[in-house]
Amino acid sequence: MLRVEEALERILSEIGRLEPEAVALPEALGRVLAQSIASQEEVPPFANSAMDGYALRSEDTQAASARAPRRLRLVGTIQAGSVAERPVGPGEAMRILTGAPVPPGANAVIQQELTQTGEDWVEVQQPVAAGNNIRHPGEDIRRGTLVLQEGAVLGPSEIGVLASLGVAAVSVYRRPVVAILATGDELVEIHEGLRPGQIRNSNSYLVAAAVTLAGGIPRPLGIARDQVEELRAKLLAAEEADLIITSGGVSVGDYDLVKDIMRERGIIDFWRVNLKPGKPLAFGRLGGTPLLGLPGNPVSAAVTFELFARPVLRKMQGFTRLLRPVVQARLLDGFQEASNRRHYVRAHVEWREGGFVAATTGRQDSHILSSMLGANALLVIPEGSPPMQPGEMVQAMLLVEGLE
Amino acid sequence: MLRVEEALERILSEIGRLEPEAVALPEALGRVLAQSIASQEEVPPFANSAMDGYALRSEDTQAASARAPRRLRLVGTIQAGSVAERPVGPGEAMRILTGAPVPPGANAVIQQELTQTGEDWVEVQQPVAAGNNIRHPGEDIRRGTLVLQEGAVLGPSEIGVLASLGVAAVSVYRRPVVAILATGDELVEIHEGLRPGQIRNSNSYLVAAAVTLAGGIPRPLGIARDQVEELRAKLLAAEEADLIITSGGVSVGDYDLVKDIMRERGIIDFWRVNLKPGKPLAFGRLGGTPLLGLPGNPVSAAVTFELFARPVLRKMQGFTRLLRPVVQARLLDGFQEASNRRHYVRAHVEWREGGFVAATTGRQDSHILSSMLGANALLVIPEGSPPMQPGEMVQAMLLVEGLE
Repeated sequence: MLRVEEALERILSEIGRLEPEAVALPEALGRVLAQSIASQEEVPPFANSAMDGYALRSEDTQAASARAPRRLRLVGTIQAGSVAERPVGPGEAMRILTGAPVPPGANAVIQQELTQTGEDWVEVQQPVAAGNNIRHPGEDIRRGTLVLQEGAVLGPSEIGVLASLGVAAVSVYRRPVVAILATGDELVEIHEGLRPGQIRNSNSYLVAAAVTLAGGIPRPLGIARDQVEELRAKLLAAEEADLIITSGGVSVGDYDLVKDIMRERGIIDFWRVNLKPGKPLAFGRLGGTPLLGLPGNPVSAAVTFELFARPVLRKMQGFTRLLRPVVQARLLDGFQEASNRRHYVRAHVEWREGGFVAATTGRQDSHILSSMLGANALLVIPEGSPPMQPGEMVQAMLLVEGLE
Repeated sequence: MLRVEEALERILSEIGRLEPEAVALPEALGRVLAQSIASQEEVPPFANSAMDGYALRSEDTQAASARAPRRLRLVGTIQAGSVAERPVGPGEAMRILTGAPVPPGANAVIQQELTQTGEDWVEVQQPVAAGNNIRHPGEDIRRGTLVLQEGAVLGPSEIGVLASLGVAAVSVYRRPVVAILATGDELVEIHEGLRPGQIRNSNSYLVAAAVTLAGGIPRPLGIARDQVEELRAKLLAAEEADLIITSGGVSVGDYDLVKDIMRERGIIDFWRVNLKPGKPLAFGRLGGTPLLGLPGNPVSAAVTFELFARPVLRKMQGFTRLLRPVVQARLLDGFQEASNRRHYVRAHVEWREGGFVAATTGRQDSHILSSMLGANALLVIPEGSPPMQPGEMVQAMLLVEGLE
């Protein structure tokens, strides 16, 4: 049996990044830059005031004090978005609002709270140092500075900064289209009633949702039954995607045509991976498109998606961090089951007074769906661990987005 | 000045949940259930085999041992999705695959590894207890059990479980449409060059991205300049949304018409909130639609969005947890600035060997955009804190999704 890390390494070694594409800035949210971006401008673009106050010449104020205030003549107002119509000369000042450009001639701003004013004058009671309350052009970002490197993930702040630099479109790695195929004669679509022996195709819905959260574009192709022509047609359609994810049809005991037809159209390996739930796994290519075959059991499909499919989708999109964050958490309830295989245990993890605590979400048998509900973590119980007691520390893989 | 918590409380007291709407299951991803859902079925729906093996009658095996194996006659095979064509009678067994329904007459399954088989027989070398390797109907979820309560957030697992129960559509709270308006004569659109004194409208892009991540539907309405008719028309269009977010036009020093026209069309309060960056804030209603006025500075807009707009959007969508998780983290670099106001410091937080560590992302002045890049947390520095040293513990608000 393969270790989880070995299986993942083999899979990822066969997966490349997709090609870049140019998108308008709003569409770049959550995506990975395929170009490095240097600023074409200074930020701030011009000297501007950090305060509402008065722009003046520092040298005019050097002798000012509370006892001998210096009165300056007001020669205008500069709002944000406007420019001064004339320079500030000796003995003069201009009213200036936050963000407005500092007028020529002025080299300092005094905040309004520190002044006395009349209709056409302002009085300063202290020396104002040159540069006071002035934000200098390029003080934040100099022209030519590398602002974001290839590989950066674009969140709201990155998008805001790019917008302020006038970057209206960016090159990002393409999002993978993922063909999703469920196999098994026992499956019916979710709006259908169940006849004896049947279960619903829930995996396609679960996988499509997980693909969406991982940044991919799901293309559900429905159920592939054990009918040769139907199956061939669906697999052919699937080959147009960037990745094919199947569920079911990969167990040793499976009694179906999927494996045969997969082999006919490409190269498929069937693996046993040393984990629980989810031992059987298939990986290969159909007509050049990578295929990942997850187990048919919904719990196993969810866990193996997390462990193998999500990193594949992230690698395709250019993310450098492919794996979920793993933290230590204190186990609130015990966990009585020992296992030779690595066990991924559905749990709810939250921060409580200085550390994470974890509680399992119920019975962990692979056919128990209800313990998937409300889980936001998978506890990683090492191969060969004994049962765990309440209060023990465990490793928890957090199913959260953004903690990179 | 209002405390952050007071301001948020005042705002949230004016915000209600939006009405429910029925959506197809795949569209419910990330949304909040507006109905409680009880299972209409047993899960599993029928007694099925937990293993690949042989279905048999327990009583036939009671005398079996390695020295005296019990040979049973094979009378068929049951795959997943099929049902037995006949019952299992005394002295008989059927080959059965994982998940396939247990045939009538049989009450136990023995896994294939423990048997010897011939063409039409199987030999059992031990007693097999009744119920062995059988998953019972309703063992996971009984018919009538409440599976998900109103208020539950639907992730991939919840969607998978609902699909398996045949729930093809659900009632969820509607996503808010958010009108986004930037105000300020200094603003130009992002594809335009800058003339002296101008800056680009980056806030609309930043806010639209943040709205999307918070589950809302952004409707950017562009820039509202200080021209009465244009401004009236934009605000009228904005009133059709569920929430209006403006940026700029809320400072004391602002020199524009926005405030006047807002007051003409509704009730607006202008607040000073005891935080940094982002002190000025406006809240009110235009023609019945709630309006949140963020500061014009991009850093302040980003921080106040997090603190005030995101909780509003979450409340509208029915989330019960409105706030970001706050954890303790060890500060790697120092933070030298003391402040009377509560300071939200842009930082990068990650898990390292048993705990979170935090590093600030650069200069924290409100006009420094570059320190927004790569931040995944806001450190919460209490009002009146002294400078902080490397190694001190700080509170960090994690900008992550899913850690609830």
